[in-house]
Amino acid sequence: MVILRKYFEVDKWKVIENGFDKDYNRVTESVMSLGNGHMGLRGNFAENYSGDSLQGTYIAGIYYPDKIVVGWWKNGYPEYFAKIANAANFIGIDVQINNLQVDLNRCNFTDFSRTLNMKDAFLKRKFTLILPDSSRVKIMEKRFLHQIEKELAAVSYQIKSLDKKINIKLTPYLDGNVKNEDANYGDFFWNNIEQKSKKNTAYLSMETKKTSFLVSAAMNWEINSEINSSKIIEKENFTGNTITLTAEKDEKIILNKYIAVCTSRDYNKNKVRENAVKLAAEAVQKGYADLFAEHKKSWAEIWQESDIEIEGDPEAQQGIRFNIFQLNQTYTGHDPRLNIGPKGFTGEKYGGLTYWDTEAYCLPFYLATHNSSVGRNLLLYRYNHLDKAVENANKLGLNGALYPMVTINGEECHNEWEITFEEIHRNGAVAHAVKDYINYTGDKKYLKDFGFPVLTEISRFWADRVTYNPGKDKYMILGVTGPNEYENNINNNWYTNKIAVWTLKYTIKTKNFIKKEFPKKYNQWRDSLDLTKSEFDHWKDIINKMYYPYLEDYNIYSQQDGYLDKEQKTREDLKDEDIPLHKNWSWDRILRSSYIKQADVLQGIYYFKEEFDKESIKNHFEFYEPRTVHESSLSACIYSIIASEIGKQKKAYQLYLRTSRLDLDNYNYDTDEGLHITSMAGTWMSVVKGFAGFEAKNNKIHFRPFLPEKWHSYNFKIIFRNRRIKVHIGKEKIKFTLEKGKALKISVYGQDLLLEQNRSAILKNR
Amino acid sequence: MVILRKYFEVDKWKVIENGFDKDYNRVTESVMSLGNGHMGLRGNFAENYSGDSLQGTYIAGIYYPDKIVVGWWKNGYPEYFAKIANAANFIGIDVQINNLQVDLNRCNFTDFSRTLNMKDAFLKRKFTLILPDSSRVKIMEKRFLHQIEKELAAVSYQIKSLDKKINIKLTPYLDGNVKNEDANYGDFFWNNIEQKSKKNTAYLSMETKKTSFLVSAAMNWEINSEINSSKIIEKENFTGNTITLTAEKDEKIILNKYIAVCTSRDYNKNKVRENAVKLAAEAVQKGYADLFAEHKKSWAEIWQESDIEIEGDPEAQQGIRFNIFQLNQTYTGHDPRLNIGPKGFTGEKYGGLTYWDTEAYCLPFYLATHNSSVGRNLLLYRYNHLDKAVENANKLGLNGALYPMVTINGEECHNEWEITFEEIHRNGAVAHAVKDYINYTGDKKYLKDFGFPVLTEISRFWADRVTYNPGKDKYMILGVTGPNEYENNINNNWYTNKIAVWTLKYTIKTKNFIKKEFPKKYNQWRDSLDLTKSEFDHWKDIINKMYYPYLEDYNIYSQQDGYLDKEQKTREDLKDEDIPLHKNWSWDRILRSSYIKQADVLQGIYYFKEEFDKESIKNHFEFYEPRTVHESSLSACIYSIIASEIGKQKKAYQLYLRTSRLDLDNYNYDTDEGLHITSMAGTWMSVVKGFAGFEAKNNKIHFRPFLPEKWHSYNFKIIFRNRRIKVHIGKEKIKFTLEKGKALKISVYGQDLLLEQNRSAILKNR
Repeated sequence: MVILRKYFEVDKWKVIENGFDKDYNRVTESVMSLGNGHMGLRGNFAENYSGDSLQGTYIAGIYYPDKIVVGWWKNGYPEYFAKIANAANFIGIDVQINNLQVDLNRCNFTDFSRTLNMKDAFLKRKFTLILPDSSRVKIMEKRFLHQIEKELAAVSYQIKSLDKKINIKLTPYLDGNVKNEDANYGDFFWNNIEQKSKKNTAYLSMETKKTSFLVSAAMNWEINSEINSSKIIEKENFTGNTITLTAEKDEKIILNKYIAVCTSRDYNKNKVRENAVKLAAEAVQKGYADLFAEHKKSWAEIWQESDIEIEGDPEAQQGIRFNIFQLNQTYTGHDPRLNIGPKGFTGEKYGGLTYWDTEAYCLPFYLATHNSSVGRNLLLYRYNHLDKAVENANKLGLNGALYPMVTINGEECHNEWEITFEEIHRNGAVAHAVKDYINYTGDKKYLKDFGFPVLTEISRFWADRVTYNPGKDKYMILGVTGPNEYENNINNNWYTNKIAVWTLKYTIKTKNFIKKEFPKKYNQWRDSLDLTKSEFDHWKDIINKMYYPYLEDYNIYSQQDGYLDKEQKTREDLKDEDIPLHKNWSWDRILRSSYIKQADVLQGIYYFKEEFDKESIKNHFEFYEPRTVHESSLSACIYSIIASEIGKQKKAYQLYLRTSRLDLDNYNYDTDEGLHITSMAGTWMSVVKGFAGFEAKNNKIHFRPFLPEKWHSYNFKIIFRNRRIKVHIGKEKIKFTLEKGKALKISVYGQDLLLEQNRSAILKNR
Repeated sequence: MVILRKYFEVDKWKVIENGFDKDYNRVTESVMSLGNGHMGLRGNFAENYSGDSLQGTYIAGIYYPDKIVVGWWKNGYPEYFAKIANAANFIGIDVQINNLQVDLNRCNFTDFSRTLNMKDAFLKRKFTLILPDSSRVKIMEKRFLHQIEKELAAVSYQIKSLDKKINIKLTPYLDGNVKNEDANYGDFFWNNIEQKSKKNTAYLSMETKKTSFLVSAAMNWEINSEINSSKIIEKENFTGNTITLTAEKDEKIILNKYIAVCTSRDYNKNKVRENAVKLAAEAVQKGYADLFAEHKKSWAEIWQESDIEIEGDPEAQQGIRFNIFQLNQTYTGHDPRLNIGPKGFTGEKYGGLTYWDTEAYCLPFYLATHNSSVGRNLLLYRYNHLDKAVENANKLGLNGALYPMVTINGEECHNEWEITFEEIHRNGAVAHAVKDYINYTGDKKYLKDFGFPVLTEISRFWADRVTYNPGKDKYMILGVTGPNEYENNINNNWYTNKIAVWTLKYTIKTKNFIKKEFPKKYNQWRDSLDLTKSEFDHWKDIINKMYYPYLEDYNIYSQQDGYLDKEQKTREDLKDEDIPLHKNWSWDRILRSSYIKQADVLQGIYYFKEEFDKESIKNHFEFYEPRTVHESSLSACIYSIIASEIGKQKKAYQLYLRTSRLDLDNYNYDTDEGLHITSMAGTWMSVVKGFAGFEAKNNKIHFRPFLPEKWHSYNFKIIFRNRRIKVHIGKEKIKFTLEKGKALKISVYGQDLLLEQNRSAILKNR
């Protein structure tokens, strides 16, 4: 089994690396990433580092369409795979002390620590450099990406000689010589447009090839000391200033570097550089302390709304906060053109691209912890891509819309037929997100104005994708890959059939609602979408005659046709050396086995649990859970929630543990490539939707909480329709406090409870 | 629909290009390829040509393990894809006349023709060059690859000035600066080991990187004229001689170039160059005319045994001879380490690698037209790779042997999971070839010494690959791709289940035979293969309880589980713009459709037709044929044979036409990439096994001939157990002549007929 690496110090609000393990540096860099929704960077060092590192700076929405790699070309494959372009390194400060290049791969040093402060969202690093004459120099670096002024970043670099006077040479710079490590053919993604270095300031404008996104980085800096000399530096794609100075023993030298990064996504091309230069100049005027104070205040508000406190389990506390922190760093909902990538701004593999993870796993977190505009923007992202999704279905010879498996601009980027063409259930998640959002926010206006066409085109896709079987008088969906990607090209995946029919039903319901409540709007849609009665009748026929594979002996739905023909094995039959299967078994062996990668039938139970009684949910759980290997970081959370639902509290807690510290403990040995951002939302769900049994339905929020044995208590907040409710689950008591907003009736264990403003309601824990 | 290009002149024994179409040059180069089993080359020009061309020279068995390209790596994929290395150009002769570089892309010329003489297996090209002063020079090139001395090639280059005295500069050379066009990463596959140019002779030794095959080419030349000057040429990977001379009006200058190509596959490395140099020197001694006479004689013998004559249809005549010619050029059976590549020596894509095509489509041709040692060597190829096949199965976590989908040295090269891991029926074809060979030759010694372990390990694979289904008390084979590659990852492909059970049965039968007839040998096998009764009992259980999908409504076997759940469409429902599906439909649409790429159930009917009555064969044919799009060049021949079998003669002929001139008319628009060598055997089968109803069973050969309407008659030869029988099918009469060997009883339309030596038996055509 996996041996966990407890590398970071446990702390409620911090992630601390004490001492520097070079071999672990890529993992630490991922964990120590900063982001503010507009941009992000890995926990790289400001000063040069010649050891193993992934220098990573990513600007939201700035991508390069890299030529894809395929084994055997198949008709319909996309031509490119969008890659978030690794952008100019803007934090860099080259440091020399007494002519020694500071480089922690080559220099002697002691007392190293690198600390991610989650509360105030900054990175702090310090170490004591040992010079060749054994004298010591303390160095400290702090940095943050401004949470409000999202184009701004600041680095404070501090040097103090402990033993004697030293000569210091500092070069704050902007370096565009950065390549994506994941470039398929080693291409450099950027063209240099312009660059300039002046006294105390510099800028660098690079433009992505093919996509022509212009990104200008401008920097200003200030220093609290006399300068001996100053030089302007201009190299290829590199611009900066070199200064020299002398520092007395115990004199603290502070270089503050302010950077602004503006892009042509937000400005006319001829204004991009101008704005960056202006913002950087304003930042140096305002100064590090003031900028940081604004930033910190903004983060305090975020934590006010989305924190989870866990008492009695510091590791769990650190884990859940790390996840909430990274989710809030990755996506802030300020721009509907952006979305949530599986690795956010923390690495390159799949980085910054959108999967169904957003709808299925992330949306509930953002709905419950932010103003509804955040969730709305996540939905608008898909609404704005509707035309592309229609094109995508058309490429496959089908009507309606098929949302892509992986995308950044609405076009499909994925190129494996069994996923690209067959993992079509993703379309259902996009539709279901509309319901989730409406359900949660009550924003029916969105449904009528934006939700309906999305639902209609997805329904059209399903209606064309089904196969009518005259022999059985049933509709089937053939040749799909379900959420369980350890099955490919199967027939009648229950989850897919189920969510297809659900989409059709919900679309008809929505149609009826609009027709009744907004008849004028309905007429508009009828004309623009060319709606006809015969089409709706056909949908009803599909709804009535959909085929669902069923296992009579177990009284449960079958994952797909023929699932029971497989040799039935459970996790207990696996040996240590088999795990994880995807690394140890050939693909055909995985496909032939009964092992399930991630929640599939259970994903359907999770979505539609109101349609099942407890007994039936239990039957499904007990059959499928032992067959599931949870080799996706998105699996355990769903099982954990269902386990909570059916009273298997220990199991729910065990399953929650699988992902609670996934990246902090590098559980899957792949955190070096970046963090598992979208799966972090799953941990939040395990706690809030699972342990606390939270759900929103019928315009009301419901709780059925329990307290995991190991914990003393836990608290979280829920934002619901302009209220903020604090929930406390203790050993004996459960407490609900309406911190903000008007009085509200909630349901706890099925009983109504009226919450009044600034008042708490206390119940006994069952 | 496809518009055929009738580019080449129709001739019974030749393929003639009259006039030069530059845009068609790659197709012509493929068609005009020469080969002798040891090496081959495309119909490139000897003199420089700057236009579009694939300069291709391939030496059998000399490959480079090119790093594979995959979309998404899957565990079990091979690391490399072997590529036959495009080797040094040895035919090259640079020609300048009055300082004009002869280059048909740039010079003016007239009266161009390029002719492949199939009877005598040589290429002849001529044209009249028009010099800038409008004077004319006739140029002719002839070349052949020696059919007996397989390491030898000869080029005769002839120049005659028609109007005035000219100055000629000639550079016969060896040029190793040749790259594979299909190299995945543009790598150069060769290292230069040594090279040398001397008066009238030169050599060049190149070695493949990684695989370290040493290939030495040596050349000698002679000229029938005084030389003005002579110069030794040495450049990087290039060695040759430049000579200048003067030719009078009407004087015919003849440069004969003799090349020997030896490799470290046949000699110790330190002897390779020595042998090449020696052979080339001996060749120049013998001279072009004598060498060609030997070569021609050898080809006369080949035609004596394998020709098919068709009277009344010159296009069909040319087509079938072209196929027989190319098959004999590609594989001569002289070396059991070699096999038949889908493109032979005529191109790079899949070139020179072995597929199940060999066993399923080519073996019958070589059995019926050659001495049995040729077929035996095809089988030994697999016997010699048995250990690798066991390793390959082991990689997938399975017992026994899985022969690779694509190989050159026994290791798997293919890297698409649905083929590599799932198209396992190929194993059955390897087993069935053993039966075919034994059946045909009666060589039971082969069965006991070499066939049995191959059969046993393949049986072990099947026994491990099946899944026992306790609910149904049946064995199933899940997750396969059948011969119809337009279905992937299906359950219970009837053909696969059928051939698996057949293998088990035949292996047990073979075991019983060896045990009875060669008990000592049996005991050896029992010990070395660790045979046990319980293993055989398990096989018998599988034989008895194999599950076969069946369509009750049609009284036929189902291609796979759930085939009838698909929307049932036939070719008639397709529009012109849909065809070919693989170019016009997305992959998922193809997979979901009922369309069949190539014979699948029918492949099983073909192999096991004795088990079916005519009615049942007809049912299967009538259901599956209209659903089959024949988008593999290996499909139509099987359907044609079955159509012949059930008396659908017109259909049989139509199906035969699909491949009879596939490359001559560039039917699939891909002949530029090389010829479809293995499918050429299918055309032969359509005629001999189909129209003539030829088969060998129970130690006897059988015929049920008919004459296609359009033909006046057809003749072919059958080599069977040291006899040569000439078969003539005329409009009224059918004639069998025993040309060689002892008297033999054959069966015609189910009636026995005794053939006596040098005598003919004449029957009425029914």
